[in-house]
Amino acid sequence: MIDELSALRLIKERFKNVSESVSLGIGDDAAAIKIHPEKLLLATTDSQVEDIHFIKELISAKDLGRKSVAVSVSDIGAMGGVSKFFLVTVGFSKEEDQEFLEGLMTGFQLGEEEFELELIGGNLSASRELFIDVTVLGEVESHIMVKRTGARAGDVIYLSGTVGDSALGLKVLKSGKKNEKDPFLISRHISPQPRLALGRELAERKLVTSMIDVSDGLILDLERITGEQGLGAEINVEKIPISPYYKDRIFDFASEPYELALSGGEDYELLFTSPKEKTREVEEISDLLSIKITEIGYVTSKLPVRVLDSDGREIKTHKRGFIHFR
Amino acid sequence: MIDELSALRLIKERFKNVSESVSLGIGDDAAAIKIHPEKLLLATTDSQVEDIHFIKELISAKDLGRKSVAVSVSDIGAMGGVSKFFLVTVGFSKEEDQEFLEGLMTGFQLGEEEFELELIGGNLSASRELFIDVTVLGEVESHIMVKRTGARAGDVIYLSGTVGDSALGLKVLKSGKKNEKDPFLISRHISPQPRLALGRELAERKLVTSMIDVSDGLILDLERITGEQGLGAEINVEKIPISPYYKDRIFDFASEPYELALSGGEDYELLFTSPKEKTREVEEISDLLSIKITEIGYVTSKLPVRVLDSDGREIKTHKRGFIHFR
Repeated sequence: MIDELSALRLIKERFKNVSESVSLGIGDDAAAIKIHPEKLLLATTDSQVEDIHFIKELISAKDLGRKSVAVSVSDIGAMGGVSKFFLVTVGFSKEEDQEFLEGLMTGFQLGEEEFELELIGGNLSASRELFIDVTVLGEVESHIMVKRTGARAGDVIYLSGTVGDSALGLKVLKSGKKNEKDPFLISRHISPQPRLALGRELAERKLVTSMIDVSDGLILDLERITGEQGLGAEINVEKIPISPYYKDRIFDFASEPYELALSGGEDYELLFTSPKEKTREVEEISDLLSIKITEIGYVTSKLPVRVLDSDGREIKTHKRGFIHFR
Repeated sequence: MIDELSALRLIKERFKNVSESVSLGIGDDAAAIKIHPEKLLLATTDSQVEDIHFIKELISAKDLGRKSVAVSVSDIGAMGGVSKFFLVTVGFSKEEDQEFLEGLMTGFQLGEEEFELELIGGNLSASRELFIDVTVLGEVESHIMVKRTGARAGDVIYLSGTVGDSALGLKVLKSGKKNEKDPFLISRHISPQPRLALGRELAERKLVTSMIDVSDGLILDLERITGEQGLGAEINVEKIPISPYYKDRIFDFASEPYELALSGGEDYELLFTSPKEKTREVEEISDLLSIKITEIGYVTSKLPVRVLDSDGREIKTHKRGFIHFR
């Protein structure tokens, strides 16, 4: 059981706001911050709920703290923005102790340093189960902001990195049967790396018409930037970038090789659309940042979103991604 | 059980952002808003967790939704600021159904209208128990912002309205024994009214040195603006403003008449300190807004915070307020 007063003391000790943009940090009714007068303020919130988003035995308090921050930061990155501040709400169950609290705070600090944020406020509560809700505030120049809604028919669909690793990493963790190849997959699940530099670079150079981070599964997130806008898409399943670790391990957990790559969420890769004439510039950025960027298909003028095999036949996908309520 | 997709559809239907300051509302990775270039951005977050902050049988979905917004708005008001936007995270348990969802959304809409806010984002999740976390963003001119930290020895301590009603209302609700006098007490608990106009007026006229909304109990919140700053306070228990309804009912639930007034939280009244020479101006505002403002004591140069009876003898208070983890 965690004592609220000592938890608050620990937070105040560990998070001392120093930057000039924080007029008033933790400890008052609200935080007061300075936002760049010519930029838009970005705001997003995301939560991690015990047994829904994580299983306490499979992730350390430190990793859970960092990941809670990373997933919200990823949303700001997918707009082409820069994250600046965060607020954290934690509902502690009776099971958490002082050691857990300190680990979680260390995780928040890691997130703070890695993503150049400042913790400006939050809220602690008791709860039957553990939950963490992180709100991240950021900034973006309005003329470069990338929305989910700008794709046009004919645009090329790109995906950074590889997908399916995180979902497969979770399966490995749950099975308890790790082998020497699995640290990569597990780390993709436990310590996701939002593609902040890539999102920012693509936005600044105005190379993309829409962008989203793959948090709920490739197909579901692809539908958000195409289908929900009344557009369709065709992607080629064999072009979907998977890692060698994924390739080695997928058949231990699934009969369809691409199932988790298509539907498993939490890779936090960037999925984006670009006009065809920007191909060379997208490749340049891939080289510049040493991030693999793969062309996986293109936007069509009408629904649906279709996944094709190498012969151009449509593959029926059953699991379209992570729906939280099922 | 609530279906996530239909929940999202309902939210998009009900909350269509229209104001010019919202560049991008619900439905993208993050919301994008315009903040006044010369003002500070205020940010606060507060949560309502089942069985900790509310009991589902004792509050309707609509009231719960409105209250979740009201308590965060109150924090912005206590800084002298104006609330503008909010984000909502809800963790739905298996017990909630479509009717509950619609009631909750109606409650958020009531909060939106009453407090002149716009919903700009949020997050839905499954959860073992119901929880709601509301982040409110607002604005304040930096030269009038009121912090918790500005009280000086000799300042007068004021309290708006009456205290103890909400905590007593909760006891009435829990007992199941309502009588004709209780709608007031119950409504103080279920539908708190943050003192936004008062907070703003006091800040604009620069009449206060520190201010806080009474959410966790009078003594605990008084310690936050005095004791935590290294100052003390003396308040007179007989001056503490209580309502006639409280007076009539308190002995049905407590042996000490002032216990709940001193320690029961959630009245969302404003507790503030002002220099002695501002007394007349504070009274003027009380008349102007028709809000009772009571002088309950004064700030002293050193700890502790003392509660005195009419003969000047110190009263030992046991329950100093609502500590969430006990």
